[in-house]
Amino acid sequence: MDIKALGFDVFGTVVDWRTSVAREAEAVGRAKGNAVDWTAFAVAWRKLYQPQMQRVRSGELPWTKLDDLHRMSLDRLIVEFGLKGLSEEETDHLNRAWHRLDPWPDAVPGLTRLKTRYALTTLSNGNVALMVNMAKRAGLPWDAILGAEPTRHYKPDPEAYLGTADYLGVRPDQLMLVAAHNGDLAAASKVGLRTAFVPRPKEHGPGQTRDLTPDGAWDFVATDFEDLARQLGC
Amino acid sequence: MDIKALGFDVFGTVVDWRTSVAREAEAVGRAKGNAVDWTAFAVAWRKLYQPQMQRVRSGELPWTKLDDLHRMSLDRLIVEFGLKGLSEEETDHLNRAWHRLDPWPDAVPGLTRLKTRYALTTLSNGNVALMVNMAKRAGLPWDAILGAEPTRHYKPDPEAYLGTADYLGVRPDQLMLVAAHNGDLAAASKVGLRTAFVPRPKEHGPGQTRDLTPDGAWDFVATDFEDLARQLGC
Repeated sequence: MDIKALGFDVFGTVVDWRTSVAREAEAVGRAKGNAVDWTAFAVAWRKLYQPQMQRVRSGELPWTKLDDLHRMSLDRLIVEFGLKGLSEEETDHLNRAWHRLDPWPDAVPGLTRLKTRYALTTLSNGNVALMVNMAKRAGLPWDAILGAEPTRHYKPDPEAYLGTADYLGVRPDQLMLVAAHNGDLAAASKVGLRTAFVPRPKEHGPGQTRDLTPDGAWDFVATDFEDLARQLGC
Repeated sequence: MDIKALGFDVFGTVVDWRTSVAREAEAVGRAKGNAVDWTAFAVAWRKLYQPQMQRVRSGELPWTKLDDLHRMSLDRLIVEFGLKGLSEEETDHLNRAWHRLDPWPDAVPGLTRLKTRYALTTLSNGNVALMVNMAKRAGLPWDAILGAEPTRHYKPDPEAYLGTADYLGVRPDQLMLVAAHNGDLAAASKVGLRTAFVPRPKEHGPGQTRDLTPDGAWDFVATDFEDLARQLGC
């Protein structure tokens, strides 16, 4: 293997969206006297993620960045959860909850080790501004912010993976996707990328049943990013 | 002013292309017994930079990344300078001399200070792979690699500046171009960006006459990146 660069899925793999979005929604919502199940709110928001991106993949919507898809979903959820009293500025701040997600504890130390040997890029469906703001807040040491927005394709469209390799000037087999999701790895593998599975058994909270184990012949399986760094000799 | 992000011109502003390309060309060429004026070779290569990009801007060529434009120019210069004995692999390595440019001495310490307060992006005509490889070698602490390739427009096309602001999720007046070239700043200013001039009086070697002083009402004029950091309160 001649791996030159690592591309990371981010939501769930690098950061814990569930508890972070719940915390951010509670901070905005409770200040206005709203009392809802904030974890359920975060989960409901995330549940609209794939269907919204599917509207772009299918061509129903022209290219639309994730911040804007998140906002369409949020506007629905504000009604469904009966959230009251949010100004436009507060709603926009809440929409950017996705810019303020906390990394898993091993993420920053693991990435810091991996960066010594590989070019590290986001290979996420998150837009560039979201990824840049998240990285600055959380200290994620990316070498590049690529993935969906610069390639104008949401994963698992092949163009998102292949376009990221092209930007980096490497062949598909010189780029390895690191992800906690078997489906993402399957799509990357199909177009020639290398694959590393890092399970995140707390992504969906207690009782998680999906993506606990690898379900494909991935090139690497690691318990966390520090273990991946060890396996890759960093 | 409400500046959120700084976009940097790179060739000449952040790195010293002239002495670095001369050094890299000499390293490749002398090993094959070639004896030419390597600084003249670097200057001749750079002289073809604007005409090659103009072929893309005008539509004569479809989108072509800078590595590929550099290669077209190099193939001409190998004939003109009579360079002998380079294999395809050695020619490709020489073409990537532009990935191995040294920063001006104040660049890394200045950027490190500026990064504490602003999102730092390349806003260069260099392609993403070139910028990523350069940054890893030189330790340039970018938050994002944007500019020509992700916007598919070479500066001074307005789309290169405005598209970079759009990727960052900021208004044009929240993005400041930092450049050693008055023409670049004029184009950025025209579409609403903030501007900072940092002269690089050694870019073109002894006897440099251009871009020694600001020729517009730029928002900031600094002697180097550390002075810019001081002026911006970093």
